[in-house]
Amino acid sequence: MFELQILFPIIGILGLIFALSLYRVILSYSSGTDKMKSIASEIELGAMAFLKSEYSKLSLFVLAVAIILFFSFGWQTGSSFILGALCSGLAGFIGMKSATKSNVRTAMAAKEKGLAGALIVAFNGGAVMGVSVASLGLMGLGLVYYLFTGMDTQITSIVSGFSMGASSIALFARIGGGIFTKAADVGADLVGKVEAGIPEDDPRNPGVIADNVGDNVGDVAGMGADIFESYVGAMVASITIAITMDAVVMDQYFGSAFSRSLLTVFPLVLCMVGLFGSVIGILSIRILKTKSPALALLFSQLISGFIFLAIVGGVLLSIEKGYRLFIAVCAGQIAGLLIGKITEYYTSSKPVQQVAKASKTGPATNIISGFAVGLESTCAPLIVIAVAIQTAYHFAGLYGIAISAVGMLATVGITMTIDAYGPVADNAGGIAEMSGLGPDVRKITDNLDSLGNTTAAIGKGFAIGSAALTALALFVAFKEAVGASSQTEITMSLSHPSVVMGLFLGAAMVVIAASLTLESVGRTASKMVAEIRRQFKEITGLLEGKAKPDTSRCVSIATNASLKEMILPGLIAVLFPVAVGFIMGPETLSGALAGALLTGVTIALLMANAGGAWDNAKKFIEKGSLEGASKGDDTHAASVIGDTVGDPFKDTTGPAMNILIKLLSIVALIIAPFL
Amino acid sequence: MFELQILFPIIGILGLIFALSLYRVILSYSSGTDKMKSIASEIELGAMAFLKSEYSKLSLFVLAVAIILFFSFGWQTGSSFILGALCSGLAGFIGMKSATKSNVRTAMAAKEKGLAGALIVAFNGGAVMGVSVASLGLMGLGLVYYLFTGMDTQITSIVSGFSMGASSIALFARIGGGIFTKAADVGADLVGKVEAGIPEDDPRNPGVIADNVGDNVGDVAGMGADIFESYVGAMVASITIAITMDAVVMDQYFGSAFSRSLLTVFPLVLCMVGLFGSVIGILSIRILKTKSPALALLFSQLISGFIFLAIVGGVLLSIEKGYRLFIAVCAGQIAGLLIGKITEYYTSSKPVQQVAKASKTGPATNIISGFAVGLESTCAPLIVIAVAIQTAYHFAGLYGIAISAVGMLATVGITMTIDAYGPVADNAGGIAEMSGLGPDVRKITDNLDSLGNTTAAIGKGFAIGSAALTALALFVAFKEAVGASSQTEITMSLSHPSVVMGLFLGAAMVVIAASLTLESVGRTASKMVAEIRRQFKEITGLLEGKAKPDTSRCVSIATNASLKEMILPGLIAVLFPVAVGFIMGPETLSGALAGALLTGVTIALLMANAGGAWDNAKKFIEKGSLEGASKGDDTHAASVIGDTVGDPFKDTTGPAMNILIKLLSIVALIIAPFL
Repeated sequence: MFELQILFPIIGILGLIFALSLYRVILSYSSGTDKMKSIASEIELGAMAFLKSEYSKLSLFVLAVAIILFFSFGWQTGSSFILGALCSGLAGFIGMKSATKSNVRTAMAAKEKGLAGALIVAFNGGAVMGVSVASLGLMGLGLVYYLFTGMDTQITSIVSGFSMGASSIALFARIGGGIFTKAADVGADLVGKVEAGIPEDDPRNPGVIADNVGDNVGDVAGMGADIFESYVGAMVASITIAITMDAVVMDQYFGSAFSRSLLTVFPLVLCMVGLFGSVIGILSIRILKTKSPALALLFSQLISGFIFLAIVGGVLLSIEKGYRLFIAVCAGQIAGLLIGKITEYYTSSKPVQQVAKASKTGPATNIISGFAVGLESTCAPLIVIAVAIQTAYHFAGLYGIAISAVGMLATVGITMTIDAYGPVADNAGGIAEMSGLGPDVRKITDNLDSLGNTTAAIGKGFAIGSAALTALALFVAFKEAVGASSQTEITMSLSHPSVVMGLFLGAAMVVIAASLTLESVGRTASKMVAEIRRQFKEITGLLEGKAKPDTSRCVSIATNASLKEMILPGLIAVLFPVAVGFIMGPETLSGALAGALLTGVTIALLMANAGGAWDNAKKFIEKGSLEGASKGDDTHAASVIGDTVGDPFKDTTGPAMNILIKLLSIVALIIAPFL
Repeated sequence: MFELQILFPIIGILGLIFALSLYRVILSYSSGTDKMKSIASEIELGAMAFLKSEYSKLSLFVLAVAIILFFSFGWQTGSSFILGALCSGLAGFIGMKSATKSNVRTAMAAKEKGLAGALIVAFNGGAVMGVSVASLGLMGLGLVYYLFTGMDTQITSIVSGFSMGASSIALFARIGGGIFTKAADVGADLVGKVEAGIPEDDPRNPGVIADNVGDNVGDVAGMGADIFESYVGAMVASITIAITMDAVVMDQYFGSAFSRSLLTVFPLVLCMVGLFGSVIGILSIRILKTKSPALALLFSQLISGFIFLAIVGGVLLSIEKGYRLFIAVCAGQIAGLLIGKITEYYTSSKPVQQVAKASKTGPATNIISGFAVGLESTCAPLIVIAVAIQTAYHFAGLYGIAISAVGMLATVGITMTIDAYGPVADNAGGIAEMSGLGPDVRKITDNLDSLGNTTAAIGKGFAIGSAALTALALFVAFKEAVGASSQTEITMSLSHPSVVMGLFLGAAMVVIAASLTLESVGRTASKMVAEIRRQFKEITGLLEGKAKPDTSRCVSIATNASLKEMILPGLIAVLFPVAVGFIMGPETLSGALAGALLTGVTIALLMANAGGAWDNAKKFIEKGSLEGASKGDDTHAASVIGDTVGDPFKDTTGPAMNILIKLLSIVALIIAPFL
């Protein structure tokens, strides 16, 4: 197998080169007028300033954890952890760079080349991020695996270290970014739209740059780190299970067709094929000469998925018992697709009309209705996840569960591309507005943006689904690791009160983290509000457009406040599994993981979909689609309140849950040998 | 032990006689002026009409289930089920009768005798309910146990039948009542206060009688059925575990000091002592010559608790290894107390001020802040429950968990008294307002009412905590029953995907039920709104006070609509465990019970406490306690919106969760022998 292993980092590097060439293509497009350049550079500087602050704070944390890992597990795990953190950080950096370069170029392309041209730029902007996430994951984990593969069982803690590195960055990027983006959004809207009465994205608003920076910080860097973590986590879980699984069980499922070493590299192979499929899908967008951006995105995704499944299926079905693994892969792919579609349904279609209609009787009924939609929307995805893991298990055992997670995430290159396209299109609209490109251009960017909202909703659903499946896979890996290391069999039975106690503690931890992040948005937003109010008051001529606002000050206030707020929930998430594991033992910890997973996924789905439904109900009314209501009336005002409530739900607290459940599992997996 | 067993039904009947004599005392008070009598009789007629409709619909359901049980388990279980349903229904009937008789007499006593006199009437009104719940539970279950105790293991399904009867009534009473009370409340407020601009409880409002009926339907009958179910369920779980527990385990914990038959009757003995303590506590209110109603209520509760623990502790600590059971009892009592106190903290004190302050920036921040408080508030109770079961298990095994639930609920007589006092005081205020008794009287009833709000919040916390502990106890009983009946050991391990699948399915079921009940309130309220609007429009002279509204029509509309809405969530709750159990087996069912329990308790706590915080934030502003805000301004308006959102949260969906988690467990326990 030795020849194959070097392939993974090499393919990863080739992928990175492809991403880089895409980036150069983007740079070759025109970045428009001086005004556009200046606005775009403000957004870019703000985004980079945030990343710099964030990473410098995080590097201390990473260093501290690396030292602990170094002394507990040896230098290999410590450096693997650092590499994981670096790869995740680099993915975020590349994504932000690409997004902040392509936003202005998308706006310019909308002016010069129309819809199709603008779509290509925005899509490529997202593709740089998508391919980078996949390539860095494959390269980093492949490298770690290649270097340390001779180390037998110790390899599990080494690859877990890589995954934990990715998780640590993701935790803070998601929480910090989530707080930043919503605080900036709420702050800019509250003072700008409501108090000063100027339109959205108006250049006179001191908070408007921070708002645009926030889109990148939250939806590009935050989302990227989230997906990167799932991607790596799913592979690590599969590798760990393959290494520790019982030989009898292995034989029972796969006979002699699959050796242990083959099963160990299989997840990396899957992701390699997935990356190949993604690249083909990305390239196909140029050939798909369709007038509908929605169809173009859909086809590129279908092409990637088809290539991936065709290659994997072709190979696996020709091997005896290979169908078992193929079904597990399909279970994951289909579950990801279904959860995305379910999310789309609840954040568009009938549920949204229902919420819009409820706005007619005021904000309270709008809120209740949106909340009811959110609750209902969590049901189907929970069932889909349950059926997927049961199917995967039935055909390929516990290993199959982890493989289904890999199957869902293997084509992450194209999934993340489409996801990152959204904030680029959103930013392009903002830049078009701020630099006065006129209503025709704005119409094109609005068109792209509204598609971006749909893809963002699907992306959120995918992120939650993949987080759940990854966390489950890591949970199984934890169980196997504890079973392999401890002398006595530990019970994880629900009939044991320690396990039930764990369930309750896990849920308790999740609600505290959710509460903290929600409150953080409020506190940070109020700082933004105070600053924007101050500027409107103290800078003479600002409202008349004669003076310029101090936008960078708003960015730095939001940056500092959000990074301060992320520390407490972040530390709780890291320390909780360690404390439970060492004080109360592995039984309680296993319960805590399951309890946190269950409540975390439920809250994440509830918040993402309720937030999406409120958001789109407002847009539904604004478009004039609700009879007897229009922009500016009481019904619309009620829907705006729902949308504001939904903002931190869907963009801060909901996403934070994704990271939380994965991080708990990965930390548990790491400390498993000591329990 | 045979002599002892006849004691339980006898003590139960004596308790009922005591409740009846209290009721006669209430009737001896003056029911005031003709106008008061007429209003009170309208409320009473409405409440009775609701009960009659509800019970006639339920009797069909009860009959159908009884026939199924008859053919599956024999006539004993079938008739035990009917008896359980009858006892629960009777408790609701007695409570409603007493509440609707004492509300007007409380108002009159406030006028004639002042605060202390009014307190005694309202308290006694609640006490009739409290003592009835405890007595009927002891009498009914005691009778079943006495009659069928010779039937060995079959006794478990017979006593479970009684518990399921109580659960069935509770399910529909809680859901139907919860929908009724909030639909009436929202309907009356929306049209009356907001559209017509007349004050709360104004006699011109056609919905005001329905609103007052709703207080009784939801907070008296609904709450009573809920607590009755927990009370009976905790005893049944203990009995079942005592009968099925392993002899070796029994010996390990209790040695020779406690025989199996002693452990089997022990929960009944505990409740007997608890009833005695409650009666003494209730009687002590006459002697406690304190000017503060809050202190009087507190002392009466402390006296009951003290007597209960003194007797139980005195006896148990004199027996070898008796301390083990005493600690389990104390764990339950203390957990109940703590959860009540935590609930009180989050629905008063600092969190409420925080929500009130957030109203200054509008409804959206009010909602987010209240939601964050709700999330935070679920953390501590979850930990309390976890610690309580772990403590009880440590000292007295799985049996100890069930006994801790009994320990929490044994003094239900006084707990329920204080809880039912709230709606009586609330109604008294309404009657005082409608019959124009003047501001002095209104001040007294307001005083009683505001205390009632606090006790109601504590009561809600207690109801959730006891539901969680009871459901856990039933879950343990289910596990023991499955283990005793099946040939092969079944796994409930979290490492088995069927169990994890169950966790997800359980959560999925809970969110659907929550969503359905939330939406039901909206639909029912809109029917009320339409009817009230119609009356204001069509009845000439109504607003001028020259014509009378058709209040009974509002009551019957709310009754019919809410009873229709309760069917779907009710049926789902009953059929879900049966379907999961028979189609997917006991492993998945055990996971589903745990998943539903965990998410159900979390949602119940979240909704109850967020609702309470919003409610009291509004009151805080209305009292003028928030600097820079006052009744009628924008801040107040924002807080009213939060309060309206919270209404169905805390009074419909939250309470429905209590029943759901218990019902799932009891149905699972019943079908256990067939799995």
